Amino acid sequence: MVIKDPEVAKLLADETRRSILHNLRHFEMTPCQLAKLLNKSVSSIMHHLNALEKAGLVEQTRSVVKGNLVERYYRASAKIFVISYVLSEGLVPGSEEIAQWTREICRNAVKGLEAFGFKLSEGDAEELLNLVERYSHLEQAAREEAISRYSSPMQIDKPALKLILSILTDLRLYNDREFLEVLNNIKRKLEG
Amino acid sequence: MVIKDPEVAKLLADETRRSILHNLRHFEMTPCQLAKLLNKSVSSIMHHLNALEKAGLVEQTRSVVKGNLVERYYRASAKIFVISYVLSEGLVPGSEEIAQWTREICRNAVKGLEAFGFKLSEGDAEELLNLVERYSHLEQAAREEAISRYSSPMQIDKPALKLILSILTDLRLYNDREFLEVLNNIKRKLEG
Repeated sequence: MVIKDPEVAKLLADETRRSILHNLRHFEMTPCQLAKLLNKSVSSIMHHLNALEKAGLVEQTRSVVKGNLVERYYRASAKIFVISYVLSEGLVPGSEEIAQWTREICRNAVKGLEAFGFKLSEGDAEELLNLVERYSHLEQAAREEAISRYSSPMQIDKPALKLILSILTDLRLYNDREFLEVLNNIKRKLEG
Repeated sequence: MVIKDPEVAKLLADETRRSILHNLRHFEMTPCQLAKLLNKSVSSIMHHLNALEKAGLVEQTRSVVKGNLVERYYRASAKIFVISYVLSEGLVPGSEEIAQWTREICRNAVKGLEAFGFKLSEGDAEELLNLVERYSHLEQAAREEAISRYSSPMQIDKPALKLILSILTDLRLYNDREFLEVLNNIKRKLEG
């Protein structure tokens, strides 16, 4: 599922909501189970679930009556959620927050490169950040294009789905001159 | 964490064990919680947890005494697990089962391409399967090489870690003539 509405995408900037969605992708769960798992109150989980349900990201699957309590089960509406690159790039009104969030991930990635044995000067880190942001946008746009082709109700298991998306994304990117240039520049900076 | 022992990798061929590991990557959980979540008996979960612990894939974090019961919490030993490509390619003794499992994923991916609007003749599907297997192996080897560079205790959050691995994997692959040839051949097959 490709999320194109900035209001819906913003829901995913919250870690608890991401965790809820993440868990409901694989299993149906009740608010109580989620609360225990995520160490939150049931009312806080309910609040998040309502927001996610309203946005169409989760749906109720069934309810079970236990004594005089009704337990509702929820499930994510899709196996894979991606935020549209037009939001990550801040290209549409209301998407500034999402763009901010994406930049934060890129910044953490550049910082994290040190753990992979790459030492960067401050100036290089700044330039690399721009390249990594460009890389991330192009990759996301290509992945989104690949996911958008998935239109049949045919069920594909997760590892196979990931492999298909990886292939289709690569096919798109390795023919994209801008992407290859970005990669080359990243390489040069890292080998600096 | 790169898994190089075929006996350990085999543990992941079981869906329940994969689910357990998947859940413990994000939260510490007790066997009881896992049993409820995965709809399995506690004894079956315990059995799997013991196997995973023995293999070093999960570890106990703490135990809580409740009445006369001791609840043990478990957590995955790493955020990301990948099976070494030498196992997926069946290159070492005892890895035939893993190689079989990888082939199955590739076969499902080729079948799944139909859902993405690609129609393939039976002969093409057979040839494409070989290419997809080659793609998968090269991609996995490059990713493994990237992960192996991650040697510092520095904590990197998941989205940033994924981005770093994606960049380092691409840097490796787009300089690999065999990979580009495989991609080109896949492209030709898909465009019929």
